[in-house]
Amino acid sequence: MNIRFYPYTLELKRPFALSAGSRTTTPAMMVEVELEGTVGYGEASMPPYLGETAETAANFLSKIDLTAYSSPVALETMLRYVDGVAPGNNAAKTAVDIALHDWFGKKRGAPLYRLWGLSLSTIPATSMTIGIGTREAVRRSVEDAVGFNVLKVKLGGENDRGMIESVREVTDIPIRVDVNQGWKDRESALRMIEWLSTKGVEFVEQPLPKDRPGDTAWLRARSPLPLIADESVVRLADLPRALGVFDGVNIKLMKSTGLGEAYRMMTAARALGMKVMVGCMTETSCAVSAAAQLSPLADYADLDGALLIRNDPFTGAAFAGGRIMPAEGPGIGATRL
Amino acid sequence: MNIRFYPYTLELKRPFALSAGSRTTTPAMMVEVELEGTVGYGEASMPPYLGETAETAANFLSKIDLTAYSSPVALETMLRYVDGVAPGNNAAKTAVDIALHDWFGKKRGAPLYRLWGLSLSTIPATSMTIGIGTREAVRRSVEDAVGFNVLKVKLGGENDRGMIESVREVTDIPIRVDVNQGWKDRESALRMIEWLSTKGVEFVEQPLPKDRPGDTAWLRARSPLPLIADESVVRLADLPRALGVFDGVNIKLMKSTGLGEAYRMMTAARALGMKVMVGCMTETSCAVSAAAQLSPLADYADLDGALLIRNDPFTGAAFAGGRIMPAEGPGIGATRL
Repeated sequence: MNIRFYPYTLELKRPFALSAGSRTTTPAMMVEVELEGTVGYGEASMPPYLGETAETAANFLSKIDLTAYSSPVALETMLRYVDGVAPGNNAAKTAVDIALHDWFGKKRGAPLYRLWGLSLSTIPATSMTIGIGTREAVRRSVEDAVGFNVLKVKLGGENDRGMIESVREVTDIPIRVDVNQGWKDRESALRMIEWLSTKGVEFVEQPLPKDRPGDTAWLRARSPLPLIADESVVRLADLPRALGVFDGVNIKLMKSTGLGEAYRMMTAARALGMKVMVGCMTETSCAVSAAAQLSPLADYADLDGALLIRNDPFTGAAFAGGRIMPAEGPGIGATRL
Repeated sequence: MNIRFYPYTLELKRPFALSAGSRTTTPAMMVEVELEGTVGYGEASMPPYLGETAETAANFLSKIDLTAYSSPVALETMLRYVDGVAPGNNAAKTAVDIALHDWFGKKRGAPLYRLWGLSLSTIPATSMTIGIGTREAVRRSVEDAVGFNVLKVKLGGENDRGMIESVREVTDIPIRVDVNQGWKDRESALRMIEWLSTKGVEFVEQPLPKDRPGDTAWLRARSPLPLIADESVVRLADLPRALGVFDGVNIKLMKSTGLGEAYRMMTAARALGMKVMVGCMTETSCAVSAAAQLSPLADYADLDGALLIRNDPFTGAAFAGGRIMPAEGPGIGATRL
């Protein structure tokens, strides 16, 4: 099997604001694997605050040698090899994982969700992200979220109540709150959550910094709303530590190293009695289509990543009826434009 | 999709002795599903002490109506339906699960392990079971275990030390000990395990009754050998309770309700840092072939079930090089003789 890759810059439709800062582009690395005339597509999306760059990804991918692998492909063996090439590099590993899964599904002639025995009927509604901004910017974002049945509002800035009030001036659909570790004090976090629980909020994602599981467990014991882990749970090995600290976990391909591990995380989280959310970064329809294949296993979906960029080089999973639905093509169901 | 079933009595080559008693047959129920000319085979093996019988299985299976399901089949949806038809009936549910997976793999033209992306190279050695018996019977059983690189010795009877000593008179290959809840006192269990650890024993399965997790955790904290759960962990929901009580879990299709849940249990157990064993009852090559498809995910295998019966109506997974290897046919890789 051959592998090739090239950098790509995702251009955001709007500056993306969250508690850690604001930006207008996201660096990505596109990956292709090819064997027996079939090409599998993958993607690494690398928001700067996670530490990977086009350079680190290219460096990692240069070390990947798949020439020893031929058909029939044992995905698990190949993914173990990729994971062992170097520590970290989670997004770059994800790009290879997606490409391998895409190739695998294409070779089998079926979308991945079918190979996994899943049904589209259990795909949950996806949320549209409302970034931190002024009252007018928030109102505009909410008004643009036509067709969405749930919103994900970024908090952890200077004006959290104002954000929610701005949303509620426009709509009464359910809100999910994502704090991105932005709250620093558990007592005021609790008071905010108590207030949020009166505003039609479903759950709160990553309220406190990831290095404070004790405070988060304290908060969870008192919170009227479920708490969902994001930054606190990156890979499968982090999951047992989230037990008793969070009610659920936001699983993202770019964190988990890909579909293989994300699938295992969803299964394990459910076994532990935790809620499962499937999320994404700003990504093209390549990675979002891959995540959509897993989404029948999720309680909550937040797969608006490709809707936030204006230079999507793929078509695939699409927004319909409030949900992001996989395309019917084989593999990840994405097509290079 | 259509379903049919018929009872079958497994005739054991030798009376099967364990701490709960002895028997010469095991009742089974064979299941077939058919759609678009493809037949999937499944099996329920029902050791009497687990409570299911040919009657309860027939009663349960009579309620299963698959006529609403057609291609493409969403296995997960169908398995959820089957599980919801009635509580319990785990072996009968397993029979349907195996048949559905066999049909699914045949339709996809590949053995299940390939569809799961697994590699045969990670299949562990399988053990041969040595039942409780006289010194002569034990020696004969051990001498018959030609080609096996590990033995599973049943303890919990009147003469545990004698059993081990009888084995050690004949061979020095590794032993796994299965107590089947047969020890009643944690202090004497600890002394026995300490002695076993000097006799080339790898681990101890289900030393104490399943209703004594506190005593088992006490034992584990002091045991020089890992403790593996069998009766204490039946389905996925039991797994989190085994954390801190056992070091690993013996996952059997007939307990778990089938390949779908067993796969999830293996994934979840590994996520929890537990060792994974794949086991079986006395079964035909139908159910053993199904379990063999999962065995690349296991640390330990105990898949000698079909080798213990003399009227196996299937051929499939076979013993080779100390391991039970799946046949290369599609689905579970079993063929009706």
